[in-house]
Amino acid sequence: MPVTVPALATPGSSEPFERTEIERRDPRPHDVVIDIAYAGICHSDIHMARDEWGRGDSVFPLTPGHEIAGIVAAVGDQVTRYAVGDRVGVGCFVDSCRECENCLAGDEQYCLRGEVGTYGGHDYHDGTPTKGGYSRSIVVDENYVLGIPEGIGLDVAAPLLCAGITLYSPLRHWGAGPGKKVAIIGLGGLGHMGVRIAHAMGAEVTVLSQSLAKEEDGRRLGADHFRATSDPETFADLGREFDLIVNTVGAPLDIDAFLSLLRLDGTLVNVGVSPEPIPYHPFSLIGNRRSLAGSKIGGIRETQEMLDFCAAHGLGAEIETISVDDVDAAYDRVVASDVRYRFVIDISTFGDRQGA
Amino acid sequence: MPVTVPALATPGSSEPFERTEIERRDPRPHDVVIDIAYAGICHSDIHMARDEWGRGDSVFPLTPGHEIAGIVAAVGDQVTRYAVGDRVGVGCFVDSCRECENCLAGDEQYCLRGEVGTYGGHDYHDGTPTKGGYSRSIVVDENYVLGIPEGIGLDVAAPLLCAGITLYSPLRHWGAGPGKKVAIIGLGGLGHMGVRIAHAMGAEVTVLSQSLAKEEDGRRLGADHFRATSDPETFADLGREFDLIVNTVGAPLDIDAFLSLLRLDGTLVNVGVSPEPIPYHPFSLIGNRRSLAGSKIGGIRETQEMLDFCAAHGLGAEIETISVDDVDAAYDRVVASDVRYRFVIDISTFGDRQGA
Repeated sequence: MPVTVPALATPGSSEPFERTEIERRDPRPHDVVIDIAYAGICHSDIHMARDEWGRGDSVFPLTPGHEIAGIVAAVGDQVTRYAVGDRVGVGCFVDSCRECENCLAGDEQYCLRGEVGTYGGHDYHDGTPTKGGYSRSIVVDENYVLGIPEGIGLDVAAPLLCAGITLYSPLRHWGAGPGKKVAIIGLGGLGHMGVRIAHAMGAEVTVLSQSLAKEEDGRRLGADHFRATSDPETFADLGREFDLIVNTVGAPLDIDAFLSLLRLDGTLVNVGVSPEPIPYHPFSLIGNRRSLAGSKIGGIRETQEMLDFCAAHGLGAEIETISVDDVDAAYDRVVASDVRYRFVIDISTFGDRQGA
Repeated sequence: MPVTVPALATPGSSEPFERTEIERRDPRPHDVVIDIAYAGICHSDIHMARDEWGRGDSVFPLTPGHEIAGIVAAVGDQVTRYAVGDRVGVGCFVDSCRECENCLAGDEQYCLRGEVGTYGGHDYHDGTPTKGGYSRSIVVDENYVLGIPEGIGLDVAAPLLCAGITLYSPLRHWGAGPGKKVAIIGLGGLGHMGVRIAHAMGAEVTVLSQSLAKEEDGRRLGADHFRATSDPETFADLGREFDLIVNTVGAPLDIDAFLSLLRLDGTLVNVGVSPEPIPYHPFSLIGNRRSLAGSKIGGIRETQEMLDFCAAHGLGAEIETISVDDVDAAYDRVVASDVRYRFVIDISTFGDRQGA
């Protein structure tokens, strides 16, 4: 029998969050019921809650949240991967077709049928809208649940489920490691994880940030170099230097200027999504056989690999923990780039358990 | 002692070609003197002669031509690679620094000092402007001369030195071969070589052309499929199908529409150069971990590999041979896409040998 649990929801794209209750399904045989401890705030939550991607596909009332960490509270009768009491996480999707070539390759994030978003999607079985982690609990198929290793706090682990894998996957895919020079554009929620992970992989890491305001942080997080992109000298100095540049910035950039920093066969990967098209000049790519690419989170197997890697290297997100009543204010601060570096909602601030 | 040889030159960006004489240097110890038999007309010759790339760097009077095939007429006293009478070719560059990491890797076309263009460049030694293949002879360092295998005519080989390698290199670099689906955008001088080479490599080849006007040609050249990009059905039918798309078109395209045709980890490579920036939407790349890349001709070793490959597979360019007096008219026809598929200047039409 479905249960109702406390949650936050926004009734429309210009309205504040409200405390409400949402329904969670009765666990199916392969389902895991998770008591959520923490939910990270991702910039894409804001785009979706404010319906800013121009796709008009946000489903209201909307309960965002796809950086979820918690404890297994119950399991369906055929679950083998997890047991009650396990520390687990849920990322950006909770199901996929499991049959297409991408799913079979472990790249469920590129499911050809379309993976089911943790929120704002629709359940394959009954078509109900999915609801995310700004809630007391969630029910997810065990194949889309990740294990959070001991030795990493659930609070700093939560943002790894999106921000962590969003950076880990392209860094791994494009070979960040010893002997490679990697630049991270933007030192925000995504970028700070990029610096930590690329450094832990053994690459030489440069942060390309608008100003030098975060230089001390950047170096503490593992950057070898820190350059201000507002300073034209930066582009003059850093000629054709990088093997890989990861662009975490969601606003349009002068992409040709950044491409000019790539060496032969270098790649600039977009993980931040500008809502507007970005002009590029073909000469910027042809000149050094450069590539401009994109990457979206990671598959389930790779997300588990990332969590294990982060635990082994003692890497979590830098977080500011907030109450469930602070989400609107936190959104405004994210938009103003006023967070170092990820807000995490302490789900216990819903108060005493009810209804679950 | 330098010699003067018959050549064509355009005195300025809006003036017709004139018959003239240009100077060719006395061979240095490693130089090869080549009697030119044929010179192909590349679209970039037109951009340079008309100074259309907005770089204002064309050097007038300009003698274009970087698709050169001929016979060795003399060699410097330390030349070991070629002998008088050898069938040889010269492509887009005639020197490079030979010391940077790209040169050392055999990627001289991406020389960090800047490779010396066959025309419109400046000789490293004496700073004189280089002059290209629309001339009776040329003097080139043996390390930048290619051997043209027996069994392939010099006339149909000439365009391989630019059009051939421009397509061969990205097809090889991005793994065209059996089991791979490759699309070629545009069936012109570049595209028709792309179809032939990709087919010979064993890939399944689709031509994406504005209309179906060249379908018969395309299939004869080796295309398995031929689709009109002016037909919206094409984009609806061909969803996420291709491993590799090579864009040979110099005009701006709706790049997002073409990117949508790439499967996971697919790459769209630009080899045609639009003079204007092209807008792309990051979602087009992020959605399927796609890449948008560029590629420029190829290195010397790879160009020789390409010539050997083409000879082994009986591949030359489809050409229309013209006289030295027909170049202006040919340029207009290239701009109007009215050539199947490459103009080649018969250098013997300069008339009796003089001055060389």
